[in-house]
Amino acid sequence: MKIFHLGLLSLGLLATVCVADTDVKTERYEITIKPVATGLQNPWGLTQLPDGNFLVTERTGTMRIVSAAGKIGEPISGLPTIEVKGQGGLLDVTLAPDFSTSQKIYFSYTEPANGGNSTAVSYGVLKNNRLENVTRVFSQQPKVDSSAHFGSRLIWRKDGTLFITLGDRYERKDEAQTLNTHHGKVVRINADGSVPKDNPFVNTPNALPEIWSYGHRNMQGGAINPTTGELWSGEHGPQGGDEINIDRAGKNYGWPVITYGENYGGGKIGDGITSKSGMEQPLHYWVPSIATAGFIFYTGSQFPEWNNNIILGALNGKTLVRLVTDGDKIIHEERLFSKELDQRIRSVAQATDGTIYFITDDPKGSLYRITRKP
Amino acid sequence: MKIFHLGLLSLGLLATVCVADTDVKTERYEITIKPVATGLQNPWGLTQLPDGNFLVTERTGTMRIVSAAGKIGEPISGLPTIEVKGQGGLLDVTLAPDFSTSQKIYFSYTEPANGGNSTAVSYGVLKNNRLENVTRVFSQQPKVDSSAHFGSRLIWRKDGTLFITLGDRYERKDEAQTLNTHHGKVVRINADGSVPKDNPFVNTPNALPEIWSYGHRNMQGGAINPTTGELWSGEHGPQGGDEINIDRAGKNYGWPVITYGENYGGGKIGDGITSKSGMEQPLHYWVPSIATAGFIFYTGSQFPEWNNNIILGALNGKTLVRLVTDGDKIIHEERLFSKELDQRIRSVAQATDGTIYFITDDPKGSLYRITRKP
Repeated sequence: MKIFHLGLLSLGLLATVCVADTDVKTERYEITIKPVATGLQNPWGLTQLPDGNFLVTERTGTMRIVSAAGKIGEPISGLPTIEVKGQGGLLDVTLAPDFSTSQKIYFSYTEPANGGNSTAVSYGVLKNNRLENVTRVFSQQPKVDSSAHFGSRLIWRKDGTLFITLGDRYERKDEAQTLNTHHGKVVRINADGSVPKDNPFVNTPNALPEIWSYGHRNMQGGAINPTTGELWSGEHGPQGGDEINIDRAGKNYGWPVITYGENYGGGKIGDGITSKSGMEQPLHYWVPSIATAGFIFYTGSQFPEWNNNIILGALNGKTLVRLVTDGDKIIHEERLFSKELDQRIRSVAQATDGTIYFITDDPKGSLYRITRKP
Repeated sequence: MKIFHLGLLSLGLLATVCVADTDVKTERYEITIKPVATGLQNPWGLTQLPDGNFLVTERTGTMRIVSAAGKIGEPISGLPTIEVKGQGGLLDVTLAPDFSTSQKIYFSYTEPANGGNSTAVSYGVLKNNRLENVTRVFSQQPKVDSSAHFGSRLIWRKDGTLFITLGDRYERKDEAQTLNTHHGKVVRINADGSVPKDNPFVNTPNALPEIWSYGHRNMQGGAINPTTGELWSGEHGPQGGDEINIDRAGKNYGWPVITYGENYGGGKIGDGITSKSGMEQPLHYWVPSIATAGFIFYTGSQFPEWNNNIILGALNGKTLVRLVTDGDKIIHEERLFSKELDQRIRSVAQATDGTIYFITDDPKGSLYRITRKP
């Protein structure tokens, strides 16, 4: 255990925060979990910039650059109106595929309208800690007066289209099975917000054309499998039944008709069954729930034996999970750590040097870095 | 918890053993684990007879009928010479597919010869607690002076052929990769010991024609998937790397070239890699090892939500594991219990009434029954 001194002087704070490194022996590596920055308000989205620093969203409605050394920047200005309520607020952030030339970033957030709200996605050009030319490219329909199940991960497909994972809005879960709302769906749009012509329901009457897959509950994690190019998503079940799925065009993932979970406090959901013809089975599921959050497919040089493994954060489970994949299968699960840190993990990112960063969901949340123990 | 009185008077023992039922709340059911009989010497094989009683082998070289009520019978006579040494002795037992007319049972055991030993399989006709017309149908080649890694589960394929899982004999692990020995192989024979004409290597020069698949370490569990008809096997890795595989004709499962385990005490095995072209990946694996033993695919009426799930015993892990399958995938793992019982589990059997029986590996091992808690 080493003592780590966070230099917060640059924030005008005359304090030295002493937090310790944590060493953990995992199946394949001894790792060190280093606190990089703390005091982030419920951080939600995390992505690395080409200069090595990080973009972090705070659910409370701010976005900041956190330097690789842990310096927390001032809020980035120019964000649209965001409703901060329950699970809602500023959520995910991702760089445009052409960020190096366009400086565009995409972000998801809770958008208020008509006495309700829903998830929206906008982009803006990041310039001098300010977003310019902010343009909305997606707005989940319909708006609902709810404070829960907003999704929403933003994942670029290799063809330049954007996947957005959208929650069922909790009270409206039955609409995860209908194609005339965006509730409980993965949608796919072009970078400018238009609808890709090859989306599965573009020619289906009364179906919203953005829909890619349906029958979802609340997906707070997703990533492209680097080998297959397909979208894998992580979905919160109710009390039990968290899932990993491969999200394929036009497929029905069964919520709320089939689930491995049950209602909070007990009792069956839907038909009380776990499988049904025409509905996809998960690749992997957890009972009880761990509350799956953001994840990556690891492809770095720091942990070569984790190549193509999923590294997944969990909220309620307070654990970082490693899932070994083989083609379209998950063949092994390791909980890299849980009690050693005892914090809700919201998002995970791989840095260009192959180390892994993650953020914790807390009013005083932190950014951590995982390296191999020297 | 209820107190259960074992009636051992019929054995001439004037003792009343009081052992308790154990109730466990699992993900899907509250179950009760009831001791049925105790005092079995390292029981290894377990199968139910049509009359509801059980055939149990003891590794120490005896086979007995244990009644459904828990009465332990006298040793069945007529067994061949068995070498009881290390992991060797009398091992698995299974009824012939035509048992109801032939009364034939098949059993595997350690056969001494030429200063060494190996796994052999014989059948006999069970009559009045005696085996008659005992006939050897398989003898693993070559004989080796070793006390370890004998396999050996006996599993009937739907076509009436018999799979035998065979260990690598520990000191001879490299021969799991060569086709001129039976070390580290699954073999397939006809009920009379002859070689099925469609075995994968019958036309391969210098290959033993009984071989079905190779590159195995020590498989102590196996069962036919009732949906697909294929053989699934459970394999002991070294320190880490226990596996579940689907054993397909002619396939190479990689041992000792690839493994997710490492040597006892640490250090790489073989090439120190986990995958290689031409070698199969496991469906599921455990690090650290749980020491996978016998398992079934559950198909009974007592636990309908466990339909087609694997129920697998573990020795070192002292746990009973439930694996949820979906086609050729394993999508969820539950440890039904471990510390609640704290005993090494060797074999599992499904009774005709849908309850589950298992035996524990101990010089005073027990037969247990799992029912739904009323």
